Amino acid sequence: MPTNKTLLFTSIPPNGLPNPAAGHLTLTDLGPFDLSTPPPPGGLTLSILAPYLSLDPFLTDKLRDASIPSYVPAYTLGAPITNAGIARVILSSHPSFPPSTLLLADDLPFAEYTTLTASAIASQLASSTLQPLLNPHRLPLPLFLGPLGMPGLTAYSSLQEIARPRAGETIFISSAAGAVGQIVGQLALRLGLRVLGSVGTDAKLDYITSELGFHSGFNYRTEPAGAALARLAPEGVDIYFDNVGGAQLDAALAAMRVGGRVVACGMITAYNKPLGEGEPIRNLLCVVDKRLVIRGFIVFDEDFGPKYRVEHQEKVGAWLAEGSMKARIHVVEGLEGAVKGLVEMFDGGNFGKAVVRVGGREGDS
Amino acid sequence: MPTNKTLLFTSIPPNGLPNPAAGHLTLTDLGPFDLSTPPPPGGLTLSILAPYLSLDPFLTDKLRDASIPSYVPAYTLGAPITNAGIARVILSSHPSFPPSTLLLADDLPFAEYTTLTASAIASQLASSTLQPLLNPHRLPLPLFLGPLGMPGLTAYSSLQEIARPRAGETIFISSAAGAVGQIVGQLALRLGLRVLGSVGTDAKLDYITSELGFHSGFNYRTEPAGAALARLAPEGVDIYFDNVGGAQLDAALAAMRVGGRVVACGMITAYNKPLGEGEPIRNLLCVVDKRLVIRGFIVFDEDFGPKYRVEHQEKVGAWLAEGSMKARIHVVEGLEGAVKGLVEMFDGGNFGKAVVRVGGREGDS
Repeated sequence: MPTNKTLLFTSIPPNGLPNPAAGHLTLTDLGPFDLSTPPPPGGLTLSILAPYLSLDPFLTDKLRDASIPSYVPAYTLGAPITNAGIARVILSSHPSFPPSTLLLADDLPFAEYTTLTASAIASQLASSTLQPLLNPHRLPLPLFLGPLGMPGLTAYSSLQEIARPRAGETIFISSAAGAVGQIVGQLALRLGLRVLGSVGTDAKLDYITSELGFHSGFNYRTEPAGAALARLAPEGVDIYFDNVGGAQLDAALAAMRVGGRVVACGMITAYNKPLGEGEPIRNLLCVVDKRLVIRGFIVFDEDFGPKYRVEHQEKVGAWLAEGSMKARIHVVEGLEGAVKGLVEMFDGGNFGKAVVRVGGREGDS
Repeated sequence: MPTNKTLLFTSIPPNGLPNPAAGHLTLTDLGPFDLSTPPPPGGLTLSILAPYLSLDPFLTDKLRDASIPSYVPAYTLGAPITNAGIARVILSSHPSFPPSTLLLADDLPFAEYTTLTASAIASQLASSTLQPLLNPHRLPLPLFLGPLGMPGLTAYSSLQEIARPRAGETIFISSAAGAVGQIVGQLALRLGLRVLGSVGTDAKLDYITSELGFHSGFNYRTEPAGAALARLAPEGVDIYFDNVGGAQLDAALAAMRVGGRVVACGMITAYNKPLGEGEPIRNLLCVVDKRLVIRGFIVFDEDFGPKYRVEHQEKVGAWLAEGSMKARIHVVEGLEGAVKGLVEMFDGGNFGKAVVRVGGREGDS
């Protein structure tokens, strides 16, 4: 009988970022997982081994005291952390999902096995937070957590809905090699924009310009954003796709052209700090002087994910299949690596969309 | 023969704010103005005596070196400063405008008399920057530079277009007794919003709550905005109508509810300072967390003034006439007072929409 390793939320990190040594998240063997007993009536037993769980920056916001309000609910202390992922049905009492069906779910535990009751399946199907993974192009599974998953839909919907790009405009994207940024840049290239990205390593800079075809880019760790924008976009920027906030946002505001749009997708420089202790923004007067829009959003809002979901799946799926769109995936091997993988999203250590391959490479089927 | 006093732009103030003693703006008698000779063919001779010129914060942005770009053109050194105002035709060679016609013009000199050529009249009529002043309700003339002029149209159009108010929502307005703020608040009250304003004196606080009927307000000089918002709107703010930027904007961001909208109308705390030297904003992460929109605009943009002009004139004109909308006007007597009047807009010394009565009270007709 297999055991079931699970990543439990065991103590609250002071500012969201878990420390592997400090026991904020603890990999725990929950003991034997009984695969000889069928799941409850109408339920499913899922294996998350070999399939993948998604790692996203917002998870650190959930590692908090539940009494602190936020746009996402806190994780429960003592329970497994959860996130979107792919699982395989191994035992089924549900008529629609026979064994070996692959499922996409928004709320899987960081564990090797889990069980879903009939009512949980029904409510998750109704809210589209659980669905069979359809893979007509036979694409690698991690792509369904990246360009075809929440980060890709985030990029696709907000670029259309907030940035409203027009051919010939200039877009600047921070965290441009990241899960969202790499998709935003490639979509903007297809729309005829001039695409400029910032990254934190020279390898990533080479990736966005040589492999993805961005017109230019810079390493924000070695060149201040203001100087880089003046050098690379002297005529100004029409769209800033912000994943970081702070000094890069401030420089972008100063570089924006009249009527520019800022997609406030993320502000990683301000995460995991008390409100007000992020890098200060000094150029907000530009919003008035240049009639800018800065807009935050959440992909689950009606005008974003739901509005663009079908179009996004069809188009991005076809582009990935034909090779005209690329995606770099950062695979973390095993639940053992999940905490480190999470921290690396904040220190620039990851490169591309981060996923955990549960059970590690040896779990591959 | 009368003389023609004119306010000339004679030297550039270091940061826009003219110093009366330092000769940045100089009241100059241009000598006799010949009223015995008719204007050029098709032209007009206008008296600006007794009528009014508008004073607005953005004028200080025009007191700059013309080589510095901005959203408004710089004033010409050695020439009169100009702004919107009301003038009376005293000599006419134009078929449509007989003597004594009152004209509304966006670009009158700060002078007692001026002449318009036929071609200037044609182009200004075409761009709607010159028009006969229609006054069906026989309202006091300064109202056409305030609630019925650019500040009123600014309030009316941006409240609709950016704030999109819904009955029951809470709006916070800074500079709430000012030319724009007092109109925004009264429009919001008509729409069933809970209206909260900030001002810089207790007299203004009394005005917005007792006279205009705002639900509440605070004096930002005696109570920090964050504390005041927590006290007056513990449930949060749906709309922030920003005229000031800085600490009040920062406090508003922290107090916004999910889906809130910030109308970036002005940031007087950041004017007349080099970009980046205004008060820093630290709570911009709220834009992401709470899916906020911050949007700047200019009233001349198609979606603002032009879209709402007719509706604004009809409705606000009727409300002012029946007394269900009020407007406080701050009259500066004579061109002599114009510089002081301009400076007072930045130190809180004015109270309401500022206008210059050219020639002072004795010029009244």
